[in-house]
Amino acid sequence: MSRKLRLGAFLPGGGQHVAAWRHPDQPLDGAVSLAFHQELAALAERGLFDAYFLADTLSAEIGGREGGSAKAAGFEPLTLFAALSVTTKHIGFIATASTSYEEPYHVARRFASLDMISGGRAAWNVVTSHGDGPARNFGLAAQYGHDARYARAAEHLDVVKQLWDSWDDDAFLRDRATGVYFDPEKVRPIRHEGAFFRVEGPLNAPRPPQGHPVIVQAGQSETGRDFAAASAEVIFTTQQDLASAQAFYADVKGRAAALGRASDEILIMPGLAPFIGATKAEAQAKYDALNALILPEEGIGLLNALTGGTLDLAGYPLDGPLPQAPATEGMKSRQQLLRRIADETGFSIRELYAWVATARGHLTLIGTPVEIADLMEEWLTSRGADGFNILPPWLPGGLEDFVTLVIPELQRRGIFRREYEGRSLRENLGLKRPANRWSSVGSDPGLAAE
Amino acid sequence: MSRKLRLGAFLPGGGQHVAAWRHPDQPLDGAVSLAFHQELAALAERGLFDAYFLADTLSAEIGGREGGSAKAAGFEPLTLFAALSVTTKHIGFIATASTSYEEPYHVARRFASLDMISGGRAAWNVVTSHGDGPARNFGLAAQYGHDARYARAAEHLDVVKQLWDSWDDDAFLRDRATGVYFDPEKVRPIRHEGAFFRVEGPLNAPRPPQGHPVIVQAGQSETGRDFAAASAEVIFTTQQDLASAQAFYADVKGRAAALGRASDEILIMPGLAPFIGATKAEAQAKYDALNALILPEEGIGLLNALTGGTLDLAGYPLDGPLPQAPATEGMKSRQQLLRRIADETGFSIRELYAWVATARGHLTLIGTPVEIADLMEEWLTSRGADGFNILPPWLPGGLEDFVTLVIPELQRRGIFRREYEGRSLRENLGLKRPANRWSSVGSDPGLAAE
Repeated sequence: MSRKLRLGAFLPGGGQHVAAWRHPDQPLDGAVSLAFHQELAALAERGLFDAYFLADTLSAEIGGREGGSAKAAGFEPLTLFAALSVTTKHIGFIATASTSYEEPYHVARRFASLDMISGGRAAWNVVTSHGDGPARNFGLAAQYGHDARYARAAEHLDVVKQLWDSWDDDAFLRDRATGVYFDPEKVRPIRHEGAFFRVEGPLNAPRPPQGHPVIVQAGQSETGRDFAAASAEVIFTTQQDLASAQAFYADVKGRAAALGRASDEILIMPGLAPFIGATKAEAQAKYDALNALILPEEGIGLLNALTGGTLDLAGYPLDGPLPQAPATEGMKSRQQLLRRIADETGFSIRELYAWVATARGHLTLIGTPVEIADLMEEWLTSRGADGFNILPPWLPGGLEDFVTLVIPELQRRGIFRREYEGRSLRENLGLKRPANRWSSVGSDPGLAAE
Repeated sequence: MSRKLRLGAFLPGGGQHVAAWRHPDQPLDGAVSLAFHQELAALAERGLFDAYFLADTLSAEIGGREGGSAKAAGFEPLTLFAALSVTTKHIGFIATASTSYEEPYHVARRFASLDMISGGRAAWNVVTSHGDGPARNFGLAAQYGHDARYARAAEHLDVVKQLWDSWDDDAFLRDRATGVYFDPEKVRPIRHEGAFFRVEGPLNAPRPPQGHPVIVQAGQSETGRDFAAASAEVIFTTQQDLASAQAFYADVKGRAAALGRASDEILIMPGLAPFIGATKAEAQAKYDALNALILPEEGIGLLNALTGGTLDLAGYPLDGPLPQAPATEGMKSRQQLLRRIADETGFSIRELYAWVATARGHLTLIGTPVEIADLMEEWLTSRGADGFNILPPWLPGGLEDFVTLVIPELQRRGIFRREYEGRSLRENLGLKRPANRWSSVGSDPGLAAE
C-alpha cells in the first residue's frame, strides 16, 4: 500500500499571517464567532482533512504594539471543539492543553469527554507553557525552567494515560436484572505518586472511544525530541527545506526506534503556509496583498513574541541587522531558527518580520496547485514528512484555495484520500488503538507494575 | 407585574432516583450518550425551562456497593454544555465547577467561552469540593476544612469576576484601516494577590456576552448562606416544607439586604422531584415501580455517600434506627437533614434510604398536575421560592410528564412563561447584566480600588 499524506489544518478563527485580520475577506469578529469556526470546520471536512488544530496560550497577548494583536482573546479550545464536533462527522480535533498549569485529572477527563462527544475524534497537543505571562496567571512570579517543564510534562502525560486506562473498555455491564452497573474488577485507582503529581484515581469518565485520544507534540529541542520520540503519535514541526526535514524525520524516528517504536506509529507533519494561484503571478499577488497590510510596530512585536519576549527590538533600526541575544528559557527552537534565517539571508529586522509575519517560522509556498503538490509529494516520498499541517495565511480564502485547488491535485496523484477511511481520528490517521495496560490484570494496577 | 416561576431542570443523563438506570424507559448508556443529552435538552427547551443544570464531582463514585453506581463516569459539564448549546437556542446551561481544585483563570476562561458559544446562556454553579476522594485526585491526602474551603471559594469567585471584567465590553475596535484591533485603554491586568491566588491577568477571552455568566450556589450552612447572600444570583436549596422554605428564603434575602442587595437580585429555587399522574393512583404507581428497583446495598451506599462517607452503616441492622455520628467535614447540611428526618419520622435505615433514594434529600411530590402546580404556586406566592429546580426521578419519562402535564397548568395560572422573554439566560431570569467594575476607569484597576 502506498503511503498517503496526513493533513491537519490550523484554523484559529483567523489566518496565520499576522495581518490576516485586516484582509477584506476575513470576518472581523472571526476569533470570537462560533458561526465562522463552524464554517471553517465544514470546509476542512469537505477537503477531507484529518484534523482541525488549535494552538493555545494561557495569557492574553496584549504586549508589543498595543492594541494590535488579533490573538489577544478568543475561545478555549476544548469547549470550542465540543461545539464543532456537533456539526461535523469525520474531521478530528487537536486541542492544545498545557502540562505546566493544568492538573492531569482535569486534562484526562476533558479529553475523554471530547472523545465521547465527538465519537472518537479527539487529540491532545501536549505542550509546556513558556514565558512569564502564563506563569503569572497561575500563582508564579516566573516560568519553570526548560528541563523542569519537560520533566513535569512527561509525568503529566503518564498520569493522564494511566487515568484513561483506569477503566477497562468493557467495564460497564449495566445489567438491569442484577443491578450491576459496572464490573468492579475492571476499574482501579492508579495511586500515582511522582515528583510533580499525586493522583489516586480512577477517572470519573469511561475509557475514551479511541482508548487514548491521539497524542500530538511539537517540541524541536533535544529534550522535546526525546519526549516526542517516546510518546507522540503526531509531531508538528517547523522545516524550511527538504534536507532539514529529512534530518529531523530520520532523527526522531531513529530515537523512537531505539525505544522500540515502529516508524509508522509516529506521523511527522511540518507546517506549511501556502499562497495558491492558477498561475505563479496570481499566487504572488495574494502574498503581496497580505504583506502590504503589516504595520511595522506589529512586525516588531511579532519578533519579540517569537523570541520569548526577551529580545526587545524596540531600540534597533528597522533596516539594520538582528542583534545578538543570549539563549533564553522559552521557545528555544524558534529563537534559533530566527537567528539562522537572519544569518543565512542577511535579512534586516524589517525583512525578517515580513518573512516571519506570513507563517511565524513555518514554510511558506507561493505557487500553483501543481507546484505545491510537487513539494508535498517529494517530501512524502523522500521521507521528509508523513503529511503537513496546513496554516492558511488568511481565512476562509486561504483554506478554500487549498481545498478546491490543491486537494484534487493530491487525489489525482493517489497520495491523498477520496473519502474518510474510518469513524475515528485514529482510523483515519492509520494509528492503532492502544491496549489498556491493566485490562488483563484486573482491579489492582500494582500487579501490572511488577 | 406578577412574579413568574423560574425553572431549572437537573438532567445528568439519568434520573435523580438511585434506581433510575434500571427503569425500562431510560437508555442504559444515558450517562455517556450525547444523543440522549441532546434529546433531554430539546425536551426541556420545549418546556421553556430557564436552564439545564448539571452537578459535578471530581472523583469516580465507585465505593459503597461496588459495581452499582450509575454516577461513576460520565461527561465533564462544560464540554457537554458546549455541545448542547449548538442544538438549542434559548435554554441556559448551569455548569458546576469546583473552587477547591480548579484555577480561577481556567474557570473564568471556560465559562466565558461557553457564554460566547451559547450566545449568553452560561451559568456557573460555584461549589467547594467535599470529601477526600476529590482531594486525592489533586495531590492532597485529605480535603481542606470547611471554613478554608469557603474562604478559598470566596476569593476564587472574586478573581473570576475580576478576570471577566479585565476587558471592557467595547474594547475590541477591529479597525482595518488603522490596524488597531483593540483599545489598550479598555483592557488591564488585575494583579490580584490574595491568600489563595496570585493572578496577573488580563483574561485571554473577551468580556462574556452576559457580562458575567449567572452565578449559582447551593450551600445551606451558615458560611454557605453568607457566601450565597453576598454573591449568588440563583440559589439551589433543599426544603421539605413551606415553613422551612419561607424561613430559608427570608433568612438569605435578609442577609443579602444587609449587604445592599435587592430582593429580586437573588432567585431561590428549591429542588423538587415530582411523580406525576392523571390521577393520584397513577402517580403513586410510578413512585412504587421505581422504589421496587432499589437494591438494599445500593440504599446503604447512598446514605453513606450523603453523609460524607464517614457514617458507615454497613454493620447496622437495616430495620434498626440510624445510629448517632459526630458532625464531620463535608456535606454538613445534608447530614443534619438526614438526622432530622430520621428523628422526626422514626424511619429505619431501610425506610430512610427508600425515602432518600427518590430525590437524595429533595422534596418529593406524588400527585396530579393540579396538585403539583398548587404547591408550586403556594410556595411562589407565599415567598418560599422564586422557582424550582426540577429533578425528574427517571428520564426522559419524568421530564416528559412535567413538560406535557405540569407546564400547561402553570401557564394557565399565569405563573409561567408562554415563550422565552429574551436571548440570554439573564434576560429570561430577569437578572440585570452586571456593569464592568473598571470600565469607567480605564486600564489601571488600581484607581478603581481606591
